[in-house]
Amino acid sequence: MRLLMIPGPASPDHRVLLAMSRRVINHRGPEFKRLLEEIQEKLKYVFQTKNPVVILTSSGTGGMEFAVGNVVGDGDVVLIPSMGFFCDRFARIVESYGGRVSWIPVEWGFPVKPDMVEEAFKKESNVKAILLVHNETSTGVLVRDLPEISRIAHEHGALVIVDAISSLGGIDLPVDRWGIDACVTGSQKCIAAPPGLALVSVSERFVEEAKRKKTRSLYFDLEAYLDYMEKGQTPYTPSVPLFYALDEALKMIVEEGLEARIRRHRKCSEAFYKAVEALGLEVYPREPEYRSVTVIAIKVPKGVEAEELRKVMSEKYGVVIGGGHGRLKGLIVRIGCMGNVSAYEVLATVNALESSLAELGYRIEEPGRALAEAGKAL
Amino acid sequence: MRLLMIPGPASPDHRVLLAMSRRVINHRGPEFKRLLEEIQEKLKYVFQTKNPVVILTSSGTGGMEFAVGNVVGDGDVVLIPSMGFFCDRFARIVESYGGRVSWIPVEWGFPVKPDMVEEAFKKESNVKAILLVHNETSTGVLVRDLPEISRIAHEHGALVIVDAISSLGGIDLPVDRWGIDACVTGSQKCIAAPPGLALVSVSERFVEEAKRKKTRSLYFDLEAYLDYMEKGQTPYTPSVPLFYALDEALKMIVEEGLEARIRRHRKCSEAFYKAVEALGLEVYPREPEYRSVTVIAIKVPKGVEAEELRKVMSEKYGVVIGGGHGRLKGLIVRIGCMGNVSAYEVLATVNALESSLAELGYRIEEPGRALAEAGKAL
Repeated sequence: MRLLMIPGPASPDHRVLLAMSRRVINHRGPEFKRLLEEIQEKLKYVFQTKNPVVILTSSGTGGMEFAVGNVVGDGDVVLIPSMGFFCDRFARIVESYGGRVSWIPVEWGFPVKPDMVEEAFKKESNVKAILLVHNETSTGVLVRDLPEISRIAHEHGALVIVDAISSLGGIDLPVDRWGIDACVTGSQKCIAAPPGLALVSVSERFVEEAKRKKTRSLYFDLEAYLDYMEKGQTPYTPSVPLFYALDEALKMIVEEGLEARIRRHRKCSEAFYKAVEALGLEVYPREPEYRSVTVIAIKVPKGVEAEELRKVMSEKYGVVIGGGHGRLKGLIVRIGCMGNVSAYEVLATVNALESSLAELGYRIEEPGRALAEAGKAL
Repeated sequence: MRLLMIPGPASPDHRVLLAMSRRVINHRGPEFKRLLEEIQEKLKYVFQTKNPVVILTSSGTGGMEFAVGNVVGDGDVVLIPSMGFFCDRFARIVESYGGRVSWIPVEWGFPVKPDMVEEAFKKESNVKAILLVHNETSTGVLVRDLPEISRIAHEHGALVIVDAISSLGGIDLPVDRWGIDACVTGSQKCIAAPPGLALVSVSERFVEEAKRKKTRSLYFDLEAYLDYMEKGQTPYTPSVPLFYALDEALKMIVEEGLEARIRRHRKCSEAFYKAVEALGLEVYPREPEYRSVTVIAIKVPKGVEAEELRKVMSEKYGVVIGGGHGRLKGLIVRIGCMGNVSAYEVLATVNALESSLAELGYRIEEPGRALAEAGKAL
């Protein structure tokens, strides 16, 4: 058995996995309606919102396309800070829907800051929306200034669309208080349900904008989802087992409490960062306070090959971690610190990392100190 | 426990449901690659094709959008026979992608015939594609002349795109032999896996056309799926548990044998039609030879309310059947005859139908004959 420590999907609990073995029910009947209502109530708690949360049978990318395609059309100007792979994905979606991307230049490894956003709004008028990746899974950078950035965007009349795929449920993100117009997440990251559902909260203003514009996709048409939501249905056949699993995973969040869950994520990430430091490794995000809580991105030290390191960790120590995306391939490895992550996963991963590095010729100054530091932080 | 006899989702076998409780694996690793290869091999068997079958994490409608959006763009003319609700859905997708729908007028309850298609091609030149719903789930009509229609379309240089969502795996549909350029199905109907995956086979010509055209959707972009397929991956996070379930459901098809499975579907539907006749009820499709094998659409007799009938069947007899879609609401009820359907489900459903009708004041000429007729046919 291998420990899955990639930056998502997270390993769902057995309770969640077993929920999928329940019988498939009629998705146009009263039982499914009740299930949907129960899920909706818990989603509002996790999203910290009073707005509806649309559930799509798709991966997180489908949720991003939904959030963009319903409001962005031909010629619309959209601001995107260039912080990593998933910012680029946002841009490709904007362009495929006819919008124009106005980049806010940000060096990879750094977050976008409020002054950069202020600057960007000075250069562009009539900005339809700003698209922000809250937690860049590809670089391990967290945009901590999201509330301030959201305020600036609203002052300029722009919608705030946030990709919180690898943060929501593990990092505090009060959607309503921060004024997020559309917040996208996936079932498979901090919520720790299996992959296959995208979840998108939509503000009143987002809904109004969407109604004014006719989106090009039928599958991702917001109006259809809202119409059917009133009947306790989805417009197209939902993946019933994934809805069971999501419901169970959300129950676990309610039982733990959102605050406690966020604290647990923070504590586990602190343990990881302490261990990384003790190993003499460098973290990829350049500014410590903007390091992600859920994705630990580590530079591969000189003399060690990233793929070799991942292979030894997986095959010899049974711990599967992620590599670098795109231009970071070979330069970094990434550890997922999300979902049900606990001391057990952190310590097993740190141990596997240290042992594998040593095996590949990397010199550990003080063997065992990484584990000790992680243990202390936990 | 209720018996789910709606026209899909079908009830997956326990083997299939339990497959989803396996641990989630890294979707960028070697284990997932093997899983994908094994699924692909079996899909080719079920689709009777040598072409790749793309797997989307979405409902069947996502598969329809994929099949249209990758080849139909601004101003493209597309022929669609107007046979029911899902033909209309195809049309909405075409229009949302900028195409122009040229309807082949067909009365609901009837199938499109080769001469109508021939006629339509005379009226329109430069037809990009014909979109056919093989088995109209909303009316219970099966387009038996698909091979002939496909031949005519190809003679006129048009692509043949088929929605086989409620037929593939239960009704014979040799994709390559009949020259289908894109054949769409869902995981949850005759394949009897849970809902959440759309499966689309793509011919060489379809791929070429798609490459010439840049689709507007990122999530449904064929090229991305084909590129990643070569690496044994999907471009966006796949719903791993649904892939496990699909693999298990396909194993069951291989074990049974596709031919035997098709025979079983036919026999069960014959039993249903015999029973319906014995009850003195009318089948909705007007021509007996074009009645669907997987969806039994029955006119609700005078004096009985469709919703009342469904309610009694479900609450008193534990058998859940479907109602009518759109303009057929209240006029018909629909029984799913797909997936793992066997004598057990047929007889239980016939019994529930007869008893419920009697309870609602419908006069049964010879009580018990429907069951006897169904039993004989089985």
